[in-house]
Amino acid sequence: MFLQGNRPSGNAIVTVALTFLTSSQAILIVWSKRAGKYEYSVTTANFLVETLKCALSLAALARIWKSEGVTEDNRLSTTLDEVIVYPIPALLYLVKNLLQYYIFAYVDAPGYQILKNLNIISTGVLYRIILKKKLSDIQWAAFILLCAGCTTAQLNSRSDHVLQTSLPGWIMAIVMALLSGFAGVYTEAIIKKRPSRNINVQNFWLYIFGMAFNAIAILIQDFDAVMNKGFFHGYSIITTLMILNHALSGIAVSMVMKYADNIVKVYSTSVAMLLTAVVSVFLFGFNLTLAFFLGATVVSVSVYLHSAGKLQR
Amino acid sequence: MFLQGNRPSGNAIVTVALTFLTSSQAILIVWSKRAGKYEYSVTTANFLVETLKCALSLAALARIWKSEGVTEDNRLSTTLDEVIVYPIPALLYLVKNLLQYYIFAYVDAPGYQILKNLNIISTGVLYRIILKKKLSDIQWAAFILLCAGCTTAQLNSRSDHVLQTSLPGWIMAIVMALLSGFAGVYTEAIIKKRPSRNINVQNFWLYIFGMAFNAIAILIQDFDAVMNKGFFHGYSIITTLMILNHALSGIAVSMVMKYADNIVKVYSTSVAMLLTAVVSVFLFGFNLTLAFFLGATVVSVSVYLHSAGKLQR
Repeated sequence: MFLQGNRPSGNAIVTVALTFLTSSQAILIVWSKRAGKYEYSVTTANFLVETLKCALSLAALARIWKSEGVTEDNRLSTTLDEVIVYPIPALLYLVKNLLQYYIFAYVDAPGYQILKNLNIISTGVLYRIILKKKLSDIQWAAFILLCAGCTTAQLNSRSDHVLQTSLPGWIMAIVMALLSGFAGVYTEAIIKKRPSRNINVQNFWLYIFGMAFNAIAILIQDFDAVMNKGFFHGYSIITTLMILNHALSGIAVSMVMKYADNIVKVYSTSVAMLLTAVVSVFLFGFNLTLAFFLGATVVSVSVYLHSAGKLQR
Repeated sequence: MFLQGNRPSGNAIVTVALTFLTSSQAILIVWSKRAGKYEYSVTTANFLVETLKCALSLAALARIWKSEGVTEDNRLSTTLDEVIVYPIPALLYLVKNLLQYYIFAYVDAPGYQILKNLNIISTGVLYRIILKKKLSDIQWAAFILLCAGCTTAQLNSRSDHVLQTSLPGWIMAIVMALLSGFAGVYTEAIIKKRPSRNINVQNFWLYIFGMAFNAIAILIQDFDAVMNKGFFHGYSIITTLMILNHALSGIAVSMVMKYADNIVKVYSTSVAMLLTAVVSVFLFGFNLTLAFFLGATVVSVSVYLHSAGKLQR
């Protein structure tokens, strides 16, 4: 799938793959929480995810070089002009992940889940500003609905706490949403800048800097733990599955950036969130709330309006 | 206001009046509940509302006859062919009000508030079927959003109970929504059938049958109470204000039917529901929930889409 890709079918396949992978990701997280608290250090897991993505990209490239030979578009070597922008998304994600440790001083975990929906709005706004692509008025309305619908679907009895978030909490949440949105939109800009360049080469360079910045994160946050308990301390079969899943969904996100865009990415991950909830009913005996049904209705209408709005442009 | 009315400005004025009256109606209800349980019989109050509307229509007609003289369009006398359909809305409301006493065996009061939002969908569907007016696809999407948004705005910790409603409870709720939607749409059909006919004459005939059917309701439900305690037992200043308000909003609804339509009516009353909640924060110290903000966002987008959908037809 991530070897070649022609625009229309590639678009649909990577979108479905991303939706599926994001859903199973959330289910793995619930599963791992049921099995007990995280014992492993998250920074080492993130580093392994980047390493695995890098290895998969190289493997894909090796097959392509064998069948097609090395060309201008699929050679791994690069110019400073091409590669200079590649560290930026990884740097942004690093800053965002570091901030994440501090926001919990101001917002509790369920509140943070609610505030993360600000990513939807920040992605839309930055997509418009940075990539200069236009959404129709109907599509903007659909985007606001997507954010409101996702938040509604996640409402629970403790959600109202989030309204008491202090100003620094709000500012950090908004900064994190902007960082995350900017990283996504910037990645799309990098990948789309050279449309003929092979996606696996582009991924290789994205992930190599991902590895580097995650190595820095290990040094900053988990150096002592790794030194005392070892790199793989607390790893389990679920941890391994989660790393595999994150790597594959990371690659799917890159594919969506190449063959579709950030808006499609946001819709896929939102629909994935709803699918996850439905699957969790069967897997974990969760109950669906009235708020979930209402939120799911609003998200569905939003998906419809996004495509209806497109036709009328 | 309800003496004459030319289409464009009349449309806007009656819509604003209906929104304002519906808001203050809900606030009076909260006020009367704060002051204690209803002591008066609801059927006598409904009868007085119809009587007052009838009297106001006659007063308006008297002024018109004085200034314009009696014409074919404003004369009170009618034909069987014209008047035969007028009892139908009043009959439908009577059946609905009688059913209301039985539904509480299956659904609690907060659950009933939630289920009442089905009125929005039933009004839209019957509007389409009976009046044969088309809504654009975007407007249908907006209508589903209006229903989801209003319900979201009303969510509270006990709302999930409604998901446990038994089948008879659901059937009664749906039947009541259909009765209420049908009564509204049928009233519009009656009023619009003779566009040149003076609205005050049309109102007179609607309300005279309203009086008759509410008299029947008194006999069925409150005959003993009225006989033993008297017709006006338990009436207070709030009761009087509520009757006045109901009469004026009833007339505003008729005006909306004449100069706008049921869709405008549903939007006005939904926006009124949101306004009421905001005003209640100041009047009664209510807290707004996150669900309210999300629901209000969805309703606002719905209002926008309803008019954006219109332009694109």
